[in-house]
Amino acid sequence: MADFDLMRELAKNDGGKIVLLVMDGLGGLPTESGGDTELEAAAVPYLDQLAREGCCGLSMPIGPGITPGSGPAHLALFGYDPLRYVIGRGVLEAFGIGLSVGPRDVAARGNFCSLDADGLITDRRAGRIATERSAELCDRLSSIRLAGVQTEAKPVKDYRFALVLRGEGLDPHLADTDPQVVGQAPLPVRSLRPEAEHTALLFQSWVDQARPILADQHPANGVTLRGFSSDPNLPKFGDVYRLRAACVAVYPMYRGLAQLVGMDVLPTDPGDTPADEFDRVAAAWDRYDFFFVHVKYTDSHGEDGDFDGKVRVIEQVDQGLDRLLAVKPDVLIVTGDHSTPSSMRSHSWHPVPTLLWAPQTHRPDAARSFGESECMKGNLGIFRAADLMVLALAHANRLTKFGA
Amino acid sequence: MADFDLMRELAKNDGGKIVLLVMDGLGGLPTESGGDTELEAAAVPYLDQLAREGCCGLSMPIGPGITPGSGPAHLALFGYDPLRYVIGRGVLEAFGIGLSVGPRDVAARGNFCSLDADGLITDRRAGRIATERSAELCDRLSSIRLAGVQTEAKPVKDYRFALVLRGEGLDPHLADTDPQVVGQAPLPVRSLRPEAEHTALLFQSWVDQARPILADQHPANGVTLRGFSSDPNLPKFGDVYRLRAACVAVYPMYRGLAQLVGMDVLPTDPGDTPADEFDRVAAAWDRYDFFFVHVKYTDSHGEDGDFDGKVRVIEQVDQGLDRLLAVKPDVLIVTGDHSTPSSMRSHSWHPVPTLLWAPQTHRPDAARSFGESECMKGNLGIFRAADLMVLALAHANRLTKFGA
Repeated sequence: MADFDLMRELAKNDGGKIVLLVMDGLGGLPTESGGDTELEAAAVPYLDQLAREGCCGLSMPIGPGITPGSGPAHLALFGYDPLRYVIGRGVLEAFGIGLSVGPRDVAARGNFCSLDADGLITDRRAGRIATERSAELCDRLSSIRLAGVQTEAKPVKDYRFALVLRGEGLDPHLADTDPQVVGQAPLPVRSLRPEAEHTALLFQSWVDQARPILADQHPANGVTLRGFSSDPNLPKFGDVYRLRAACVAVYPMYRGLAQLVGMDVLPTDPGDTPADEFDRVAAAWDRYDFFFVHVKYTDSHGEDGDFDGKVRVIEQVDQGLDRLLAVKPDVLIVTGDHSTPSSMRSHSWHPVPTLLWAPQTHRPDAARSFGESECMKGNLGIFRAADLMVLALAHANRLTKFGA
Repeated sequence: MADFDLMRELAKNDGGKIVLLVMDGLGGLPTESGGDTELEAAAVPYLDQLAREGCCGLSMPIGPGITPGSGPAHLALFGYDPLRYVIGRGVLEAFGIGLSVGPRDVAARGNFCSLDADGLITDRRAGRIATERSAELCDRLSSIRLAGVQTEAKPVKDYRFALVLRGEGLDPHLADTDPQVVGQAPLPVRSLRPEAEHTALLFQSWVDQARPILADQHPANGVTLRGFSSDPNLPKFGDVYRLRAACVAVYPMYRGLAQLVGMDVLPTDPGDTPADEFDRVAAAWDRYDFFFVHVKYTDSHGEDGDFDGKVRVIEQVDQGLDRLLAVKPDVLIVTGDHSTPSSMRSHSWHPVPTLLWAPQTHRPDAARSFGESECMKGNLGIFRAADLMVLALAHANRLTKFGA
């Protein structure tokens, strides 16, 4: 992975412009012996040409056999050792919906849940209430007051919400209150180290005040909290890579991740197609050195087991790609954060097809199209995702040489 | 290699069943330019089909250019960093013949040797006396008594035996007494650190008492001791991988290694063929999640420089393989612990052909048969043997994802 001390020493303030295009869950599997993967089945003339002209390989998000969540998978693509830099779920959720979480704040992921007359959980997801309903409930919860601390609760999606406490002396070392099974009451907020005891009391007070507010709101008459966490204070792109970096992503979590590593998050619409996202890159082209562009629905269709749907999203990306190529990036990387084979309906550990196209500096290889099998012929080999940023900077002529 | 903390976090109690089939010293070399290796020369229709359907690669036991002994090579296959976890030869020999060695016991590998009238070694292997003869001598040596310590000596094979001292305060940091050349006397037992001085005196007393017992037993009228060691207390398969693991191996050392990592050792007969070993897997199939199956004679023929003999053993494995496939393993890995090219008559560092077949989860690749050259086309690439267990667990759907 990127050695940040080395990057600070070698990275220059000038050089070419880089686009990192991430199709979430891009890697796949064939559904029958000898068949194509989703990417291989897709008609992608632009991507095939880029693969033919540039260099290819397969990236391992974490290491052999390890299936990543979206957080660590993206941190790796951004050059961070995903086993060292760990981001709590609470922070991810909060950032994703535009809540700020400073190093002294604590965020939690909340679930609305259903409680019976005895206070025992009957549904950990409150019947999967709609996001709009969640928003109404969060509004009601905004009446909660805690001594010396600000609180903010906002809906994420369906029964999920994010809760942030802001103030002095907060500590995120708290245990989840979700017992993970029905038939039990939510657990009390418990501190995992003495310094967090005050914070535990504050969160518990919030939960206690929420109870009467939600009492008549069945199926969402209870809450559980988990993933208590603070801003991990990651090294920032501007500092370690000397990049003015921007993020174009529709889905909240990826905007949150980009913000954590110091990217500016450009405005998007929830309905943006890949082509729309590329237009947003073009519109901001002069202001940044690096663009992270995230396409979500490859992963969503993979998780749904929808091979053809995933193929269609990949083809959509290709169909819009002329808009991205028109701005003439010096380095264009196309990859995924992990594999999501539709046959498995889940993230997986399989290495992710990756192409790096940098007409001034890439060394061409034997890959003739963009797909899992052809990438095996590429000269990037099987590499750690966390090494990709260094390759991006190198191909953009943004690194000086090491040693005399 | 497997990060055991991470494995403890990610490994599930359920998922598919795994067979790790190790042909000892599998990797080889061609005997003439453009020729086949032993594996490539063998007619192995089953293995070729598995390689075609699944994925292939080449495993490095320790690292580039490093030739391993059997102990570290197997530890690596089991996911242990072979440079960190080191097992003494004494323990290996003792475990292999069913002697227990607790963390406070010390085991040594013994050789019977021939001494002349001046007590100088004339044959370090006592004319390679038969195992039965060795057993008689070990019986005689059982009359030796040491203060506060139990002793047990048992034959291993030919002139080799294992000696275990059991008691309090023992320390294995002792130097070998085998001078490694003839014409010298066995060295006294010498401690390598102060804490081991008492143990050195005990072993020396054992040697001193053995001398008169063996005096009239020429060519086996002396002993040397080496590989003093204790149970290294390795993390166990059940703990780190959540696997109920079993070993099917004919040769003592591999049974000992399996025991050290927490596998149950299934009974075998010394004359078991590979097909017999596969039958033993089938018979125990319901009781375990993981089977380590060891085939010794590929290595033996390699060490003998017998190219054709090694080919025949590989073909024997293939001919029995239908019995293993009949139990329908979810993951079948076929590999070696290291290479033993018959042209070199020794272990070597060359990466070892490896196939991973897991019809529900493998990503097929361009390898069309099982052999060194075809494995280079495989999508496992050249990988560290110690990463293989993680891949096995992943392909068996026995790991949850890392991070959210």
